[in-house]
Amino acid sequence: MVDSSRGRPRVAVVGTGLIGGSVLLRLHEAGLDVAGWDPDRATRADGRARGITFPDDLGGAVRDRDVVFLCGPLPSLPETLLTVAKHAGDGCVLTDVGSTKGAVAAFAGANGLTDRFVPGHPMAGTERSGLAAAVPALFEGGAWVLCPAAEGIGPFRMLSGLIVDVFAARVVPMSPAVHDSVVALSSHIPHLLAGSLAGAVAKSDLRDAVLGLAAGSFRDGTRVAGTPARRTADMLFDNREQVVRQLGQVAAFLDGLASALRDQDIDALVGHIEGARDLRTVLFDRDLLAHRQEFPADGDHRAEVEFLLELGAAGGHLTGCRVDGDRVAYTGHLPATAHSA
Amino acid sequence: MVDSSRGRPRVAVVGTGLIGGSVLLRLHEAGLDVAGWDPDRATRADGRARGITFPDDLGGAVRDRDVVFLCGPLPSLPETLLTVAKHAGDGCVLTDVGSTKGAVAAFAGANGLTDRFVPGHPMAGTERSGLAAAVPALFEGGAWVLCPAAEGIGPFRMLSGLIVDVFAARVVPMSPAVHDSVVALSSHIPHLLAGSLAGAVAKSDLRDAVLGLAAGSFRDGTRVAGTPARRTADMLFDNREQVVRQLGQVAAFLDGLASALRDQDIDALVGHIEGARDLRTVLFDRDLLAHRQEFPADGDHRAEVEFLLELGAAGGHLTGCRVDGDRVAYTGHLPATAHSA
Repeated sequence: MVDSSRGRPRVAVVGTGLIGGSVLLRLHEAGLDVAGWDPDRATRADGRARGITFPDDLGGAVRDRDVVFLCGPLPSLPETLLTVAKHAGDGCVLTDVGSTKGAVAAFAGANGLTDRFVPGHPMAGTERSGLAAAVPALFEGGAWVLCPAAEGIGPFRMLSGLIVDVFAARVVPMSPAVHDSVVALSSHIPHLLAGSLAGAVAKSDLRDAVLGLAAGSFRDGTRVAGTPARRTADMLFDNREQVVRQLGQVAAFLDGLASALRDQDIDALVGHIEGARDLRTVLFDRDLLAHRQEFPADGDHRAEVEFLLELGAAGGHLTGCRVDGDRVAYTGHLPATAHSA
Repeated sequence: MVDSSRGRPRVAVVGTGLIGGSVLLRLHEAGLDVAGWDPDRATRADGRARGITFPDDLGGAVRDRDVVFLCGPLPSLPETLLTVAKHAGDGCVLTDVGSTKGAVAAFAGANGLTDRFVPGHPMAGTERSGLAAAVPALFEGGAWVLCPAAEGIGPFRMLSGLIVDVFAARVVPMSPAVHDSVVALSSHIPHLLAGSLAGAVAKSDLRDAVLGLAAGSFRDGTRVAGTPARRTADMLFDNREQVVRQLGQVAAFLDGLASALRDQDIDALVGHIEGARDLRTVLFDRDLLAHRQEFPADGDHRAEVEFLLELGAAGGHLTGCRVDGDRVAYTGHLPATAHSA
């Protein structure tokens, strides 16, 4: 399916809000044949006004497509997945953009869809919503998680190539379980902390005075609290076990800071804060090494999947995937520390 | 001292790092006669290379000045205040830019300086440091707290006018105690939360994978963890009582979110998050009403100070202060809700 002689895939995007709309606009901008669908009639009209195919029925949007991106709200995903799988051809690759992966991957497995459904999650977004807020460049340079499985390795390879080529994203292969642990720390707990800060101030006697003095640290620290509440709640709820577990580590660090303040231990305080600062510094200065790996295109794919999962868990990402005859070649980047370990 | 016929004040800035340097550059850009001083020889040379007066001795920098901004590190302030008060003339107005106000205000009172020292705090900054990181527009549109006292009302009026006119900042009058409570929530706890998130990830087995997936919510949620550790520690330490007290409210909100997750109570979760979102919405859309108030220029100033403290505590700010004959006129803005209350 990554054979370029087959031409570029025909794509559909189901659910065209902030994320799905941005996927759609980028695909359209890149010149691919793409159809959109959204349950909201006004959104479909908006899509058509932009010159994009937007059938009124979901079946019409996904029939005869090579790839379908499922982008509706998290709780709607399982039902949408079954509906789309029914209407799309057997060879059609399905992927989603939901912010948790364990539940939907298990659901796909239980419904015999692992050979064509690749759980996905682009790590991008804003606190806005809807097609009107969509921007085609939203995913450039960002991480886009895809969960590889041996029985669906063809669809994984094809999507990896497409996402790198069209969206200029870094494809991060991860198992659903590792993904859900990692995003608890990288995304879900930041939402909890932002909400706690904003929510505590909302209830405080000092609310108005805080609003008067709020500067950069408060604005940045509460930004994602501006996300639509239901969207944030669905995301946290779906990943509640991992969120609660990882929150324990963040709360422990916070307790350490508070204890240092209570004990008037300035050296301990500086030490804790220096540890935090080191992480912040490396966030913008990761030392990455180029990496290339080949596998037989056919076979049982276990070594290939193992390589992919290790790459993602180590903080690496793919920059390309090409099938050439009987070989598949991955190019990517791996943190220098992981590489030497 | 706010009588414009006296001409523009001659100013000195002592300690020209990120904040002091930005104060200095803006005063220089505005055409005021300004001298800088910094304990670091290379910084003084950098200042001179920018065409700004930078004597090698502190006394030379502050002698014959009308206003001195004290901008060094927080722990150095008390000693610097005494030194500058000794070298500057009796009529020279002193102010600082430290991130807590209770301790330095008490120190100034104990040393008989309340009639000329106005505790101050511009709510601006970045995670960078040093004169090289200074930017003259840093304070535009931001809040700049000044603490008025009846015995130093003349210096307060003069600084209010200067800060509005030269820095285009919103002057927020507040008592030192209220300031320290408010900044615990608006600034210090955001630093604690950012540090806790970054610090917990630094220690996590998932560190490299989190760095690979980190997107906007993680970057914004950890931004101020990039601040020099000693600067953050000094700030938190100096305000530790208020920080620990207000942190209890934030931790309680966080507990409520975590409990809703543990109890699988999606409605409670949405409710909590909606409360947080409302605060975020109002942060960028405060309904402010113009306000004007006059007082006798001379007298005991109690009503004037009371008006100023109520304005700041209610989330308002000054947009001007003019002494005209025997009257002083303040113009400002108050939140509509506070105004009608």
